[in-house]
Formats: sequence, structure tokens, C-alpha cells
Amino acid sequence: MSLNSIFQYFVPKDKKFFPLFEQASSNLIDMAKLLKELVNLPDSSKRKELCRKIEDLEHRGDDISHQIHLELGKNFITPFDREDIHTLTSSLDDVADFIHGASNRIDLYKVEKITDPIIEMADLILEATEDVAKAVHELRNLKNIRNITDSCVRINSIENKADYIFDKAVGELFEFEKDAIVLIKYKEVLSAMETATDKCEDVANVLESILVKNA
Amino acid sequence: MSLNSIFQYFVPKDKKFFPLFEQASSNLIDMAKLLKELVNLPDSSKRKELCRKIEDLEHRGDDISHQIHLELGKNFITPFDREDIHTLTSSLDDVADFIHGASNRIDLYKVEKITDPIIEMADLILEATEDVAKAVHELRNLKNIRNITDSCVRINSIENKADYIFDKAVGELFEFEKDAIVLIKYKEVLSAMETATDKCEDVANVLESILVKNA
Amino acid sequence: MSLNSIFQYFVPKDKKFFPLFEQASSNLIDMAKLLKELVNLPDSSKRKELCRKIEDLEHRGDDISHQIHLELGKNFITPFDREDIHTLTSSLDDVADFIHGASNRIDLYKVEKITDPIIEMADLILEATEDVAKAVHELRNLKNIRNITDSCVRINSIENKADYIFDKAVGELFEFEKDAIVLIKYKEVLSAMETATDKCEDVANVLESILVKNA
Repeated sequence: MSLNSIFQYFVPKDKKFFPLFEQASSNLIDMAKLLKELVNLPDSSKRKELCRKIEDLEHRGDDISHQIHLELGKNFITPFDREDIHTLTSSLDDVADFIHGASNRIDLYKVEKITDPIIEMADLILEATEDVAKAVHELRNLKNIRNITDSCVRINSIENKADYIFDKAVGELFEFEKDAIVLIKYKEVLSAMETATDKCEDVANVLESILVKNA
Repeated sequence: MSLNSIFQYFVPKDKKFFPLFEQASSNLIDMAKLLKELVNLPDSSKRKELCRKIEDLEHRGDDISHQIHLELGKNFITPFDREDIHTLTSSLDDVADFIHGASNRIDLYKVEKITDPIIEMADLILEATEDVAKAVHELRNLKNIRNITDSCVRINSIENKADYIFDKAVGELFEFEKDAIVLIKYKEVLSAMETATDKCEDVANVLESILVKNA
Repeated sequence: MSLNSIFQYFVPKDKKFFPLFEQASSNLIDMAKLLKELVNLPDSSKRKELCRKIEDLEHRGDDISHQIHLELGKNFITPFDREDIHTLTSSLDDVADFIHGASNRIDLYKVEKITDPIIEMADLILEATEDVAKAVHELRNLKNIRNITDSCVRINSIENKADYIFDKAVGELFEFEKDAIVLIKYKEVLSAMETATDKCEDVANVLESILVKNA
């Protein structure tokens, strides 16, 4: 606790890292919104366009990560451990990768009918990225640790729901889908989406371990 | 080496963390025993019941992890680095997730015939969790470092065997199984089981890195 | 920067760890060369032999990792953090695992026709291991940090290319391959190859985080 006060004293307003983390996590929300839009399209005519937008945002995320690394090289004092900044950055990157991966598979595998579990998954991914962004915003002042841990708990529960939906959907594919290639398509799309929520849980774990060290 | 003695002097009998780690690793053995029982059932009538028991134990594992986090919040002095406690906890959790994942797939995919490789995998998972528990118990007093490294070596060799069984079984599926959906079912069940042994290896890696720091 | 100079002063010529890391990364190049040879064989008659050679090199890699661990136990002063040595070692190991995994699947699944994306992937894996080795060699003297970061940037771009090839190839499988079992075979081989480049990216991340701490 005393460590925390020292910490707050010396780095009262970090002007470099926090805004970048906030940009990275807002970017995830934008990607998740586009993914939700994509899986709710009435037909696949606008699909390519949305996929391209998601890809653009993934590149924007890469740029933000790169800027964080440049700042790490320039700044001797950082708001928390350099390796945690590094781990947090790459875990946010992983979320972007799998949201992009999911949209990419829907496009590349030419998935015709978007099923209910895919739509539910997109909702959960959006929820999870919103909690990731909330928790990341609270990092600025570690006063409201409770807000961060609450978000982390919610992310964990979202990931559990995504797990359940994935398992149930794949169970049903094995029961009712007789075309093996169609079965694989849906399984792979759902699996990328489920992994996106796993990666949000990884972000939550990194945040919790930052709290554990600095609180 | 001197560091180790200081370490032992200041935290002679940690009453919080070690018992929780031991509960978490005993819980893995219980889960592995149930999985072994499940894959050796004469028919699938009792399958659902065993799956539910495994799921209950997975939740118990989550509770133990949660208690460890609460203790981390309360205790300023910990028997080893806070981030290592965090990593060890989540790596034990991962093992539970994949044991549960394996039983879940057997149930959800309605796997009819339990094959020999599945039975062999269940045996290996039980062996691996027993070595995980042994190594975790030795953490209390780092005097018998040799016992920990021996368990870690055995876990590595179990993981190699599981890899081999997985590869061989999947090779045979590709050679003899003409129904693609049946092939995917078995491949996925075996893959979850193989990943459970991978996750035991991850625990061994965490334990070794704790030794490297504290020994 | 000043930290770096101190660092260089105290451990001017580490005689234990750097040669072992260099052996481990040269070993990856050798494995990648054999994999490239394997996928360019005119027929499958020499395939088993090359697979065995790759497996032998994987075991050699395990031996090198083991030696690094022995040195960690013996040396109190290490060129950089003990846990980073541990992480770097296991990330190099992971690359070896997936190169071996790819060759193993080609053999076990009795893949008849080696397709263009498989050949392109083998080229990319070789490129990535060459950059891994370059970056690892530069660790000795952290004077040319730029060389390391350049290699890391190239590894990232190689991984992106591998991702793209994987996605495109799998998209085409879903479009043109009507035999689901053949589709799974190719998807799994390509997936192991793509993961090998992912693991090279993990090595790059570890190297970057070592730079971040020591530069």
C-alpha cells in the first residue's frame, strides 16, 4: 500500500503510456463493433468492406504497439514495470489478432449462413472488449482497484459463457451437420471467436498481475 | 544459495499459500481420477454423472485460485515473488480447464467407442498430475530441490509420451477412418487430452523458474 | 543506457550462456533447412530419413536447453535475468517443437502431394530461423541493438506473410477440396508450419523484452 503511494507520487500524470493503452483498448471496441455489424449483415454483399475495415483497425493497433515500444526506448521512468508494459501491449495485440482472425475466416471460408452462436459470440466479444477498455482506463489512477478487479471478474465470466456457447454449438454441429467440410468451417470460425475472449481473459490476467505488484 | 537461506529464515512456515497450492494440485489428481474412471466406463449411462463431478471440481479449482488472489491482496510478504504465485495459480488452473475440456468433449460430441489411445492418455494425465502435486508439495521447503526437478523431468517425459500417442492415433485415424466427422471427433478429444499434459509441463516450467530465482 | 554499460562491464564475455543460445538457434536453422529439403523431395522415398534427422536435431535442442538449465544452477551471475534466460530457452525450444511437428504430420498423415503453400511456408520458416539466429548472436554485445530490433521487425513481417499464406491456402481448400479428410490433413500441416513462425515471433518478443530491460 505504501509502495502504491510512492508510485503515485513519482508518476502522477503519465502522459505517454496511458493514452496509448487507452487508444489500443478503444481500438479493440471499434473492431468488436465492426465484427458485430458484420455478423448481423442481411446478406454478404457488404462483408468484404467490413472485413477490410477490421483489417485496417488491426494495422492501427500494430502502430499503437509500435509507438509504445518507441516510448519504452525513450523513457527511463515508466508508470509500471517495463516488462509489464511489454506484456500488456502484446496481450492487447492478441485480442485484435483474433477479432481480425474471426472476420477473416468468415470471409475466406465463404460462410454462407451466419448462425445464432456466431451472433452471440460477437456480442460477448464486444462486451469483453468494453470491460478491457474500462479496466485499462482505471490503470491511470490505481485508486479504484475495485473497478479493475470487477471488470476482470466480468471478463472471466464472459469467457466462461463463450466457452459454453462454443461447446454447445460444436456439440450440435457433430449431432446435426452431416457435411464434414461445413462442420469444420463453423467450428473454425467459432473457435477464433472463442479465442478472442480467451485473449481478453489474458489481458485481465496481466492487469491483475500489475495490480498485485503495484497495489 | 545464501538467498535461499534468508528466504527460509523469514518465511519459515507459510500458512496461507502452500496449503492452497496443495489443494489446487490435489484437486487436479481428483479430476484426473474421474477422467480415468469416465474413459473406463463399460457403457455411457454413467458418463453424464462423472462429467458433472469433473465440472464441480473445476469450479472448486476456480474457488481455490480466487482464495489465492485474496491472500495476495492481504499479504505483503509472500513465500516467493507475487507474479510467480500468480503464474503458478493460473497454470494449475489451465490443467483443470483441459481435463474438464476433454471430459466435456467426450460428452458433447457423444463419442461412442472409447479407444485405446484415449485410455492411455487418461493414464498419462493422472501420472502427470501426481507429479505436479509431488513437486508442489516440495515447494514448502526448498531443501529437496532434487525432488522437484525429478518430478519436472518426469512430467516432461510424460508429455513426450502423450505427444507420441496423439501423433500415432491421429496418423491411424487418417489412415483407417473414412468418416471425416468421426475422425474430427476423436482428433479433438485426443487433442484436449494432449493439451492437458502440455499444461502440466507449463506448471513444471513455472516451478523450475521459481527454483531458478530462489535456489 | 548507463545500466547497459555497467552490464557490459561486469559480464564482458559470458562464456557459458551465449554459446549455448547460439547453438540452439543454429540448430533451428539446421532443422528448417531439413524441412525445406523434405518438402522439396521429388518423391516420398527419402521422407522418413529426413524426418528422423529432424527428430534427432529436436533432441539435440532438448540437450542444449538442459545444459542451459544446468548452467543456471551453477552460475550466480548471468548475462541477463535468470527468468529471461529461462523464457528465451523455452521459446527457442517451442520453435523446434513445431518444425518437428510439421515434418511429423507430413510423415504420419502420409501427405502425398506437397502443395505450393507448404513449400512457401518452409521457405518462410527458414528465413525466420535465420533472423532468430542473427538476433540471438547480437545479444552478446548489446551495442548493435538496432540489428536485433531489425531482425525482430523482419520476423514479425515473416509471420504476417505466413498468416496470409495459411489463410489463403485454407480458404482455397474450403473452396476446392471436396474430400474432408484430405482438407483436414493439409490444414493441419499448414497450421503446424504457421505456428512455427508464430513461435519465432515469440522469440522476437522475448528478445525485445530483454532489450527493454537491459538497454
